[in-house]
Amino acid sequence: MTDAFSFTLRATDGVARAGIVHTPRGDIQTPAFMPVGTAATVKAMLPESVRETGAEIILGNTYHLMLRPGAERIARLGGLHKFMAWSGPILTDSGGFQVMSLAKLRKITDEGVEFRSHIDGSREFLSPERAMDIQRLLGSDIQMVLDECPSFGALEAEIEKSLALSLRWAARSKAAFGQQPTRACFGIVQGGVFPRLRQRSVEAMTEIGFDGYAVGGLAVGEGQPAMFDVLEATTPLLPANRPRYLMGVGKPDDILGAVLRGIDMFDCVLPTRSGRNGQAFTRSGTLNLRNARHADDPAPLDTECRCPACRKFSRAYLHHVVKANEIVASMLLTWHNLTYYQDLMRDLRAAAATGAVQAFARECARSWSAEPVSEAH
Amino acid sequence: MTDAFSFTLRATDGVARAGIVHTPRGDIQTPAFMPVGTAATVKAMLPESVRETGAEIILGNTYHLMLRPGAERIARLGGLHKFMAWSGPILTDSGGFQVMSLAKLRKITDEGVEFRSHIDGSREFLSPERAMDIQRLLGSDIQMVLDECPSFGALEAEIEKSLALSLRWAARSKAAFGQQPTRACFGIVQGGVFPRLRQRSVEAMTEIGFDGYAVGGLAVGEGQPAMFDVLEATTPLLPANRPRYLMGVGKPDDILGAVLRGIDMFDCVLPTRSGRNGQAFTRSGTLNLRNARHADDPAPLDTECRCPACRKFSRAYLHHVVKANEIVASMLLTWHNLTYYQDLMRDLRAAAATGAVQAFARECARSWSAEPVSEAH
Repeated sequence: MTDAFSFTLRATDGVARAGIVHTPRGDIQTPAFMPVGTAATVKAMLPESVRETGAEIILGNTYHLMLRPGAERIARLGGLHKFMAWSGPILTDSGGFQVMSLAKLRKITDEGVEFRSHIDGSREFLSPERAMDIQRLLGSDIQMVLDECPSFGALEAEIEKSLALSLRWAARSKAAFGQQPTRACFGIVQGGVFPRLRQRSVEAMTEIGFDGYAVGGLAVGEGQPAMFDVLEATTPLLPANRPRYLMGVGKPDDILGAVLRGIDMFDCVLPTRSGRNGQAFTRSGTLNLRNARHADDPAPLDTECRCPACRKFSRAYLHHVVKANEIVASMLLTWHNLTYYQDLMRDLRAAAATGAVQAFARECARSWSAEPVSEAH
Repeated sequence: MTDAFSFTLRATDGVARAGIVHTPRGDIQTPAFMPVGTAATVKAMLPESVRETGAEIILGNTYHLMLRPGAERIARLGGLHKFMAWSGPILTDSGGFQVMSLAKLRKITDEGVEFRSHIDGSREFLSPERAMDIQRLLGSDIQMVLDECPSFGALEAEIEKSLALSLRWAARSKAAFGQQPTRACFGIVQGGVFPRLRQRSVEAMTEIGFDGYAVGGLAVGEGQPAMFDVLEATTPLLPANRPRYLMGVGKPDDILGAVLRGIDMFDCVLPTRSGRNGQAFTRSGTLNLRNARHADDPAPLDTECRCPACRKFSRAYLHHVVKANEIVASMLLTWHNLTYYQDLMRDLRAAAATGAVQAFARECARSWSAEPVSEAH
């Protein structure tokens, strides 16, 4: 046992992997799903409940936290872990993706990105150096380099130009991160749907050398087949002894397919956001609890699930509280969805460790289509 | 130990009382505060968390439940306790107060009240008999008679006429309730701020004979001194061997004053609603967490409190999540406020049982004014 960040590859099953990310704040069994705690809270959950779902690491958003309550304030209050009462590891993004998608009037130069806050319109600036500084102030265990996120549909030439900027920013991010053995700095592979650019990105990133590698710029509209194609062209090029993180993904079958293609870590707002919208992921497919067919159903959401929503309440109750816009609906469905995701990851880890990952994938595909009525979200 | 509903008066301290309401679903130590679970949920809380605050009984609203999800549906699903996963006693109101204040186009006749739902405008009818039928379908442990609730500011003659109707409805409610030894039926004393009418109401109610007596029609704008005057004119007339319930009250000092005037049971949306609005009750007064002065405060809300908001989070964190409109703010502040209320009741019970209730009241008044800055809600 050491206090340094490290990664152990425990087993491989074809391209799929089972491993352990070691951090001073605890180990993370991979493949791992990281619930998103954007504004210092995994929405509608208490931290101990997040832990009960099986989560070993959560994600925080640099963009949101720098605007409110502010990175320096969180540092004065003892860091993000203490502030939000989560003692396990935290990965923070660099803020880049949110700046590109949420902020107003953003202006990108080689130096960084100038933008106006979506909260109060205040003028802000984010550079590779400032992004790493904020993540250091937050006390993040896994810090992400700042990158530019080209919009989906950009031409190859635009992606290539954007990639060049991202590579310059990655080198500056790594230099700003410096030597912090107890913490990790992850690079982000970009390059859109173009294998040539993905390859160039991997080469440059591994040349700089990071503690882990994210695959970015996916799940932005390209569709699952294109996403899987990119993964197949990318993960074989990445060093086997470093964790691989697919950013912002995804639906259960996206995660399953990405694990089959060598990904170790995931984050996504889907289980939490869907929960707040009355949607539940179950072993027999996704359910929209708003649907009137649940109004008299005494059955639990998912008979195999161990979460409070499934142990104590009926579909009829969940339907009622969703319809009545009660906060408890968000609480229960978020808890359920996060539990479902963590159970999926646990089963994926067990399958990958025992050479059963293909069989497990087939079983999932069969069971997800079992719900008799397909429900639109 | 019996399965019948009963009340034991344990001790008196002046007019203040300490007692136990026995129900087949568990005992309720009095003075007791009942959190409000309007639509089959104490808003922003899980039932086990409500129990952890110390609550031994909760309140459900007949008006809301009859409209959504419907009393017959709840009965088919096994009753309100099972539906909302609360195994302790539940008191239900009769729906009268909400019909008068929430429903549209209500029309009151001797038979009952016709109204339109505030949810979908559907035409509905509530009579004394239907109100008791709904409460039976819900499986309520303590059922309230239907009464008319005159608006504050009504003339004495109007109150007198309304009282006469309420007394006829009370007799019909009791007849409809019939003999249910494991459940209780409470009458409601009305009469506005007029001692003569309150006395007449008490006489008629005790003549009918109920398992407990509520004091209704208060906390509607008359002010605390007038409310206390009514209690002083009413509670001495009520039988000592029955619990007394002050409906819809109130702030901590309202409750304290009412206990000093012989009340045993309370319900109010204040701790839950205030929690959702960023307001916290503490041993040193009420705090508005939205106030910027909390932004950098590492101290807990209340150092003596055992709730998760106080054990794990700072005022700075609570300020942040209130400002960011995060659901966890409602969850934590509701949990805190309910814990505060239950701790107050626990201390009141201990004081009433040991002849210390006046000293305790003086101590509360001193400590509630200790917060240096008085904060508007």
